[in-house]
Amino acid sequence: MNKLLKKSLLWPLTAVAAIGFLSMGCSSNGEFGSSSDAAEKVYVAPGEHDEFYGFFSGGYNGQLGVYGLPSGRHIFTIPVFSQAAVNGYGYSEETKAMLQTTDGFVPWGDAHHPELSQTDGETDGRWVFINENNTPRIARIGLDEFKTQEIIEIPNSAGNHASSFVTPNTEYVSAATRFSIPMKEDNLENMDVSIDSYKENFKGTISFIKVSDEGKMNIDFQIMMPGFNYDLSHAGKGPSDGWSFFTSYNSEEAHTMLEINASRNDKDYIAAINWKKAAEYAKEGKGKMIPGKHYRNYIDHEEGGIAKSEVIEEVRVLDPRKLEGIVYFLPTPKSPHGVDVDPTGQYIAAGGKLSTVIPVHSFEKMMTAIENKDFEGEDQGIPVLNYDSILHGEVENPGLGPLHTEFDGKGYAYTTAFISSEIVKWDIEKTEVVDRIDVYYSPGHLMIPGGDSRNPDGKYLVALNKITKDRYLPTGPEMFHSAQLIDISGDKMQLLLDFPTEGEPHYAQGITADKVKKRQKRFYEIDENNHPRAAKSEKATRVERDGNEVHVYMTTIRSHFAPDNIEGIKVGDEVYFHVTNLEQDWDVPHGFAMKGANNAELLIMPGETLTLKWEPKKEGVFPFYCTDFCSALHQEMQGYVRVSPENSDTPISYSTGQ
Amino acid sequence: MNKLLKKSLLWPLTAVAAIGFLSMGCSSNGEFGSSSDAAEKVYVAPGEHDEFYGFFSGGYNGQLGVYGLPSGRHIFTIPVFSQAAVNGYGYSEETKAMLQTTDGFVPWGDAHHPELSQTDGETDGRWVFINENNTPRIARIGLDEFKTQEIIEIPNSAGNHASSFVTPNTEYVSAATRFSIPMKEDNLENMDVSIDSYKENFKGTISFIKVSDEGKMNIDFQIMMPGFNYDLSHAGKGPSDGWSFFTSYNSEEAHTMLEINASRNDKDYIAAINWKKAAEYAKEGKGKMIPGKHYRNYIDHEEGGIAKSEVIEEVRVLDPRKLEGIVYFLPTPKSPHGVDVDPTGQYIAAGGKLSTVIPVHSFEKMMTAIENKDFEGEDQGIPVLNYDSILHGEVENPGLGPLHTEFDGKGYAYTTAFISSEIVKWDIEKTEVVDRIDVYYSPGHLMIPGGDSRNPDGKYLVALNKITKDRYLPTGPEMFHSAQLIDISGDKMQLLLDFPTEGEPHYAQGITADKVKKRQKRFYEIDENNHPRAAKSEKATRVERDGNEVHVYMTTIRSHFAPDNIEGIKVGDEVYFHVTNLEQDWDVPHGFAMKGANNAELLIMPGETLTLKWEPKKEGVFPFYCTDFCSALHQEMQGYVRVSPENSDTPISYSTGQ
Repeated sequence: MNKLLKKSLLWPLTAVAAIGFLSMGCSSNGEFGSSSDAAEKVYVAPGEHDEFYGFFSGGYNGQLGVYGLPSGRHIFTIPVFSQAAVNGYGYSEETKAMLQTTDGFVPWGDAHHPELSQTDGETDGRWVFINENNTPRIARIGLDEFKTQEIIEIPNSAGNHASSFVTPNTEYVSAATRFSIPMKEDNLENMDVSIDSYKENFKGTISFIKVSDEGKMNIDFQIMMPGFNYDLSHAGKGPSDGWSFFTSYNSEEAHTMLEINASRNDKDYIAAINWKKAAEYAKEGKGKMIPGKHYRNYIDHEEGGIAKSEVIEEVRVLDPRKLEGIVYFLPTPKSPHGVDVDPTGQYIAAGGKLSTVIPVHSFEKMMTAIENKDFEGEDQGIPVLNYDSILHGEVENPGLGPLHTEFDGKGYAYTTAFISSEIVKWDIEKTEVVDRIDVYYSPGHLMIPGGDSRNPDGKYLVALNKITKDRYLPTGPEMFHSAQLIDISGDKMQLLLDFPTEGEPHYAQGITADKVKKRQKRFYEIDENNHPRAAKSEKATRVERDGNEVHVYMTTIRSHFAPDNIEGIKVGDEVYFHVTNLEQDWDVPHGFAMKGANNAELLIMPGETLTLKWEPKKEGVFPFYCTDFCSALHQEMQGYVRVSPENSDTPISYSTGQ
Repeated sequence: MNKLLKKSLLWPLTAVAAIGFLSMGCSSNGEFGSSSDAAEKVYVAPGEHDEFYGFFSGGYNGQLGVYGLPSGRHIFTIPVFSQAAVNGYGYSEETKAMLQTTDGFVPWGDAHHPELSQTDGETDGRWVFINENNTPRIARIGLDEFKTQEIIEIPNSAGNHASSFVTPNTEYVSAATRFSIPMKEDNLENMDVSIDSYKENFKGTISFIKVSDEGKMNIDFQIMMPGFNYDLSHAGKGPSDGWSFFTSYNSEEAHTMLEINASRNDKDYIAAINWKKAAEYAKEGKGKMIPGKHYRNYIDHEEGGIAKSEVIEEVRVLDPRKLEGIVYFLPTPKSPHGVDVDPTGQYIAAGGKLSTVIPVHSFEKMMTAIENKDFEGEDQGIPVLNYDSILHGEVENPGLGPLHTEFDGKGYAYTTAFISSEIVKWDIEKTEVVDRIDVYYSPGHLMIPGGDSRNPDGKYLVALNKITKDRYLPTGPEMFHSAQLIDISGDKMQLLLDFPTEGEPHYAQGITADKVKKRQKRFYEIDENNHPRAAKSEKATRVERDGNEVHVYMTTIRSHFAPDNIEGIKVGDEVYFHVTNLEQDWDVPHGFAMKGANNAELLIMPGETLTLKWEPKKEGVFPFYCTDFCSALHQEMQGYVRVSPENSDTPISYSTGQ
C-alpha cells in the first residue's frame, strides 16, 4: 500500500517533468528496528514529562501548536493570528485589538515559521516569533505565559513568507515579501497599475525589525529589492554573524503561470544581506523615511493585560543601489526554497526545489569574492557573485525536490526531499550523502531541536510531511497533517513514530524542556491585577449603568459567581461583563458563557480579568454559567440576567445570594 | 508531587464539607506494571492504524475531536458549533448558515456529549450527534465525510446539557433544559419576570427530536417539566427500550447560590420518560402546538453542499400532568449528575455527585412499582416512586463525588469519582466494588468504546480528567485537559497512558475502527459537483460583473489557479471567489487566501467548490495564493487582482497565462 501510494505522488509536474531529473534509486535503509525498541523510545509514562518542547506552526490555522517530544503529544495551542473560540481570543474585549491591521479586523492568518529567541546563537527560551503570510505580520509569544504578547504588521509587503528569522542575539527578526507588488521608489504605497507592467513597477522589500530587551518590536529599516519572490531566510552566526541570507525565486519576474514561467532560469539567487552595515546606515539616517502605515498590537501589562494598538505611519527604506555593500546576490540553482546556515556559520546550504544537487556556499569564499569584487555582473544594480568562486561543494544524489536542511552539531546536515519522500543525511565538509530514510509522505521542513542554532541537540529529527493519506485512521476527505519522529543519535537514522499535527505545520522549532520550564507562570497574582475594571474581591462586585452601557464587575470562585442574579437590564443595552477569577492556585480557570452572546465565551485564568460584551435583543431571563468543570459543584455555578423592554424603568439590582 | 497535588484538590467545598463525607482510604492498586508492557500496548507503529476511533467533545471549543486509541493520537477536529479558521468553517459563504440561530449568528458553542448513532442498541458508525449548551442545539455529523451535516436549535430551553442521547435505533435524539426559565404553559416564550418568582414561573422542557433514515432532525415533541435543573440522560435498551432517563438536581428550585441552596435535599430525581407512549400521544395530536421558533441548518447536498437555514415557528408540547404515564420521578441521592443504563437494560445507575453511594435502580422493579401505583407521593403533578421499591442496590465505598458510569459487557461497571480522583470498578449484580485505580486528576466522564450500548468493547477505558496541572510539560496558566487510557481487559485495571485533549472534553464515545473505515469518502467526484457557481473545468472559468457584485469562477489544480490575473475590480465591489478544486485524488486539497479579506481562507477538498467574499477597500494589486503545500511548485501557485478606484471604467479582464 505504501509503495503504491508513494508512486502515485510522482504526479505530473509540468515544470519538473520538463527539467528531466536524473533517475535515482531510492535505497531505503532506515527501516525501524524492532518495534519494541521504538515503542520504548517514544513512550513517556504517566506522570513523566517529555524531554523537548516542539513549537509547530499551525499553517492555515494561524496558531502555534506545542508538542512534547519524543511522545509526539500535542500539549497546547497558542492562539496567535486567528480567532480562537476555545478561550475567546480575538472575541473578548481584551484581545480584539491583537487582530487589528491596516486591512481592518482580520480574524485569520497563515502562520509558517516559528523561531525561538536566541542569545549568543543558542535558543534561550524567552520567546517564539512567528510570521503571518497573508496580511504580513510577525508575532512574539512569551514562553512565561504561552501567550501572544505582540503582533507587528509589515507594510510595503505582500505574502510575508521569508519570516520570522532571528539574528544570533535576537537583535532583529527579519521578513521579506514573497509577492512583489507595484511600488514607487519614494512611496511604497501599492499602486493601481496593470499586472503586465510587472517588470517595470513591481518591487520587493526585506524588513529588519528591531527587538528590544523587553521584546518590543519596531521596524528599523526596509531594503528595497528587485521584484522577485523572496522565499525563506536564515541569519548567519559565528563568522557570518552580521549577515542574513534570503532565497529568491522568480528572478524571471514572471507575473502569470509561475509554475512554468518562474522555472525557466537555471539559477535564481540567495540575497546575502549585511544587516550590521545596513543598521549602521539606518542609524546614520541614511535612506528615506517614507509612508508605510502599520499596526503594532501589544498586550499592555501596565493596564490589566488589555491589548492595545499603536499605528505607525512611516518606515525607513534603504536603497541597496545607493548604499554600497549591503546586498549581494549568490547565484543558486534552481528556484531555491530553504536556505540554512550550519552551526559553525561557515556553510550556507540551499534547497533548490528543482535542483539535482544541494549547493553549499562558503561564507569565507563569499567574503573573499566580495573583497575581490569577483562579480559575474549585476542584476538591477545588485552585484552578482560568481557561483564557482563561492561554492563549498554540491551534494549529489540528494533526492528529488530538496527543500530544507537542519544540522545535528556533529558535522552532519539533514535535507528533506519533497518529491522522493525522504530525508537525506550528508557530511557537511565532504558534501557527501551518508544515509537516507523514507518518510511518508512529501516532507516540507524538518526540525532538529536547536537545529538551526549554534548548538543543536542532535538526538531527534522531526519530518514535517505535507501529505498524509493512509497514515492514520481515515477522516473523510480532509485530514490532519503528519509528522514523523526519527532517532538520529546513531549512524543510521531510525524511524520511531508517526504523529498527527494540527493545521498545516510548515516549520517547527524544538528546545530542551528545562530552558522553558523554569520560566513558567502558573497563575496571575490577584494583588498585581491592574485591570481597570477588575473586582478584586466579592465586596467590590457591582453593576453600574452609564446611559445604555452597563458594566458588571463580577467575580468567580468555586463554585459561584458574584453577583449571580442581575435585573434592570434593557433591550438595547450594551452590557459588559468584566469577570475576575479570584482563584489563586494552578489550573483553576473559570469560564463565562452568556446565552445570546454573539461572540465566544471567556476562559479566565486565576487572578485574571476578561470582558464579554453582550447586547440583549429579547426580553426574558437568560442564564450564564461557568464553562470549565471547576469543582464537584461546577454544575451549580450559574446565574441569571433579567432583560426588560427598552422603555422599562426597572432599576439595576443584583444579588449574590448570600 | 502527585500525592501532594492530589491532597490540594480536596479544596474547601462549602456544600461538600457541610455534608460530612465518610472518611475513606483510597487504596491505589492500579499501578502500571512494567513500563515496557504499557509502552508496547499503546504503541502504534508507523504505517499501522489504531484499533478504535474516539470522538471527544471539545467542550468550550465547540468542536468534536477525533482520537485514535490506544495511541491517544489526536487525528482530526471536526468543526461543529464554532468558527474554525483552519478551513474557513463559519467564515466561508457555504458554511455561514450553519451557525445561524434565533439569537443571530453565534460563532461559538459549548459542546458536551457526543453520541454515536445506534442500530439495535449497537453503534453503527453512521453519525455522531453532539449537543451545544449555551445556545441550545444538537448537531449531526456524518462519518462518511467527517463533517457537520445538520444543526437543529432547541426552543424553550436554556443550557442544553442533558443531550444528545439516542434511542436504540436512533429513532430519537433527546435534549433537556439545564436551566429552567420563565415560561407560561400555553406559550413557552421566555418572559420578563422577577428572578425571585422562580418557583412560580420557571419551567423546564425535555425535547425528543425525531431522526429520519437520512438523518434529518425535527422536534417531534417537548414535555413540559417542573423548574428543576436537568443534567444528563440515557435511553433504556432491551427490556427498558422505550424509556429514557434524565437526572435532575435543584429540585429545591433555588435561583441563587446554587452550590449551597440546590444541595439541601437528600434526594433529587431521575425522571423516567416513556418516550414511546409520549410519541404515540404526539402522533394522536395530543398536547398543543405552541410558539417555539428555531433554526434547522443543514448542508444541502442537492445544491453543492451549501448550508441552508430553515426556520420552524412552532413545536408540540405535552403536559405530563394531563397525559398519564409518560413521566415518573425516581428519587435518587443526591444532586445526581450522570445516569447510565447497563448493557442488559435492567439497571439504571446514578452518579449522585454529593452522594456516599452509587444508587442502582432496577427497571423491572420500576415497572412493577408503576403498575402497583407504589408512589410515595407526587411533585408538581408527577408521580414519585418509592426509592426502596425500585432499588436494585447501593454500591458502597464508591469514592468521593461519583459522577459517571460505563460498562464493559462482562458484568462490570466503572464509575468516576471526581473528588477522590479514581475509577471504581464494581459488580453490577452484587453492587460491590471489586477494583479501583487512581487517575490524575478529577475525572468527569469516562468512556469505554460502546460502553453505553448493548454491546461494549470492554478492552480499554478512557478517564476524561478535568484537572491537568503537572501531567505534561507546563504551558503557562492555561493548559490542555488530560485523558488517561486504562487497560480493563484483565481483573485489575492497568494505567497505560496519559494523553492531552483539546478544548474541554466532557464525554467521548469510541467505536471499532472498521465500522467507520468502510464508509469513508476520500474526495468528491467532480462530475457530481452540483454547486451552482462551480467551474468544472478550466474552460469554464470566468469573471462576471453584476452591478457591484463580481463573481470569479475559479479553478485550482497543481500548481496554478485559473484565472491567475484579474483586472477591473473596483473599490466598493463585493467580490465572490467561487473556487473549485479540480483534483480527483485523495488528500490533494488546495487553499485560497486573498490579501485584505476580513474572513478566513478557504480549504477546498478535491471536487469541491467553496466561496470567499472579499470587499477591497484600497487601490493596488493584491496577491492571492494557495495555502496548502500541494506540490513541489506550490510556492508558484499564486495570482494577482488589480483594484482600481471606484469611479474607474477599467473593464473586467482576466487571464490564465496560457
